[in-house]
Amino acid sequence: LKGLVGKLVEVGSKTKALGKDDPRRVIHALKLGLTLTIVSILYYYKPLYESFGVSAMWAVMTVVVVFEFSVGATLGKGLNRAFATLIAGGLGAGAHHLAALSGHVGQPIITSIFVFLIACTLTFMRFFPSIKAKYDYGMMISILTFSLVSISGLRDEEIFLLLQKRVSTIFVGVCVCVVISISISPFWAGEDLHNRIALNIEKLALFFEGYGSEYFRTLQDREANKDEKFIQPYKSILESSGIEDTLYNFARWEPGHGCFQFRHPWKQYLKIGALTYQCAFRIDALQRNLSSSNFQLSQEIRTEIQEPCMEMSVESGKALRQLVSSIREMTQPTQAEIHTHKSKAAAKKLKASLRSSSLWENCDLLTLIPAATVGSLLIDIVDCTEKIAEAV
Amino acid sequence: LKGLVGKLVEVGSKTKALGKDDPRRVIHALKLGLTLTIVSILYYYKPLYESFGVSAMWAVMTVVVVFEFSVGATLGKGLNRAFATLIAGGLGAGAHHLAALSGHVGQPIITSIFVFLIACTLTFMRFFPSIKAKYDYGMMISILTFSLVSISGLRDEEIFLLLQKRVSTIFVGVCVCVVISISISPFWAGEDLHNRIALNIEKLALFFEGYGSEYFRTLQDREANKDEKFIQPYKSILESSGIEDTLYNFARWEPGHGCFQFRHPWKQYLKIGALTYQCAFRIDALQRNLSSSNFQLSQEIRTEIQEPCMEMSVESGKALRQLVSSIREMTQPTQAEIHTHKSKAAAKKLKASLRSSSLWENCDLLTLIPAATVGSLLIDIVDCTEKIAEAV
Repeated sequence: LKGLVGKLVEVGSKTKALGKDDPRRVIHALKLGLTLTIVSILYYYKPLYESFGVSAMWAVMTVVVVFEFSVGATLGKGLNRAFATLIAGGLGAGAHHLAALSGHVGQPIITSIFVFLIACTLTFMRFFPSIKAKYDYGMMISILTFSLVSISGLRDEEIFLLLQKRVSTIFVGVCVCVVISISISPFWAGEDLHNRIALNIEKLALFFEGYGSEYFRTLQDREANKDEKFIQPYKSILESSGIEDTLYNFARWEPGHGCFQFRHPWKQYLKIGALTYQCAFRIDALQRNLSSSNFQLSQEIRTEIQEPCMEMSVESGKALRQLVSSIREMTQPTQAEIHTHKSKAAAKKLKASLRSSSLWENCDLLTLIPAATVGSLLIDIVDCTEKIAEAV
Repeated sequence: LKGLVGKLVEVGSKTKALGKDDPRRVIHALKLGLTLTIVSILYYYKPLYESFGVSAMWAVMTVVVVFEFSVGATLGKGLNRAFATLIAGGLGAGAHHLAALSGHVGQPIITSIFVFLIACTLTFMRFFPSIKAKYDYGMMISILTFSLVSISGLRDEEIFLLLQKRVSTIFVGVCVCVVISISISPFWAGEDLHNRIALNIEKLALFFEGYGSEYFRTLQDREANKDEKFIQPYKSILESSGIEDTLYNFARWEPGHGCFQFRHPWKQYLKIGALTYQCAFRIDALQRNLSSSNFQLSQEIRTEIQEPCMEMSVESGKALRQLVSSIREMTQPTQAEIHTHKSKAAAKKLKASLRSSSLWENCDLLTLIPAATVGSLLIDIVDCTEKIAEAV
């Protein structure tokens, strides 16, 4: 019994953490419950029940299946479901009519052939990447509706009635879902994507702001006060690269909202996201370097490289911060350019001093130079990011 | 008209490419068509139709929704659907009975409250990562079935009849799906995962085998004959890291098959996959280095480092090859250990010579040393991979 209580407490605290982590989850659950309750009125309210009959079941099913977390996902699935049912239902009715012409014996055979062909074709079509991204669910519903309508052993007029009811209930279900999803604290996938990209760039900026000074602290200093808050954030970028694609696919379905218009250039976000990922990639190399470094720089070298390295890091950080704020406010990043120019100049200086100086004798360069190389790579990246941010 | 013909030809060639790329896609489509045709016999065959009635529709729906590409995915979805329907159906019937006790007026209100509560709870539960991975679909079906059963305005005995029919048709649908999925050229997610991991390690090996000699060719040589076949493969590892997680989730549902037993340590594959990814990460750094190098090594340095670097690269490649074959044959990788030892020794040598040698004056080290650092990192990785491969 004690174990059970302990487990319950554990589950409770986990639930609380999950809700606190993103309160929208709780709201989403409540929204779904509300939508379902609204649709169930179709059953309770006599006049409505009489016109829809048992088909009202389809509306309930639609709500459960279609209602997703973000508006874009709900809209995408809803439209897919509604139009797939409409089109495939029509085709199914046609196939049923054709098969019925061939008499009592031929009908099952011809229907089976139709179903087999349509099912094979549409299933194969689901493998096309472009269809998979936007219309995967619609394809499945098409197969479903076509089979149901063409197989059912009813007469023609009954089929049209059934189809009409099915389509109309599904439309009602989808409409209720979409209206609730948009009207009660909507979660826009596009907004999510936008915030996510800005946040990721901010994480990069955070890293650079901390990195310069951290690198030039001596090892002893570093062990004394471990101020590595700036290191962790960027790692989450590396772990969650797939989410942006999903959000992008949802965002494409969304109408204009807030400061985003319909057909907002969501694709740009993907590009920026990819570049951010690349940049985090390089930061990871830098960081591994930092943590594995058991080196001692001679004083001369330190003074030689400290200034340009610090400047590179700090200016990159500033440029990224500018990019973040310009993405958030949707303005042209004019300030960022200045900072990238500065960090580029610093990189040039560092490269020159690395080439020319005669300080390099008999010291362990294993850890120093990768940092410089990666640093210059980073500046390329910053430059690149800037170009794309301009396109926003 | 010409544009249309051109487009059709384009679609045709794309289709052909998709089928050729993985012929299993075509087989999958045919399998689904076959299963659907078999299930539709429920409708045509009189005695069966009489016992199932219109509920036979549920069997068709189940097939379309549950039949997935791999056995694991089909089995997972099927079991989820069957048991979720059974449990939630029972709960729904109970809720309906309770609500009916409260009379004509109270019934809709109490039912609504039940539906609202269950929908909210289960929707929120879908956010738990552990539930999402294995039981997401089951949760959805639970909400669906519970709502359908409890809302429907039927009398108690009718509900049990409906439920019984629904559950039995869904069981039939799931069984047909699973049997066809396993009996006709089954695609095991576990086998996919196994092959994928082996292939990825092979790609790494390919890189190392080519890298050593490529690096020490002079720049002119390199431009003359671009033999960069070994470079491309590893990139695909970086692009497709999410697939393994999906396959893992499916593989957990699969019974023993071929040389894999039930409860095969699939988790080990994820670990190896993560390490492979890390390794590809570092290779990417090496490769960027290689392609951006506009350096000239002095002859002395070249001779100094060539031997250990070559050895590191070649031996790492050999060790990885051994790992691949031992994963494929499921044996202990004894040979691999020898090669990792050798490459470790080479790394030590290289490190020593980098520290001590007095050759470093006045030359551009920007490109040389990262390679060495990353090389030694790689050896750690190889070592790590080996440990895990031993666990297979």
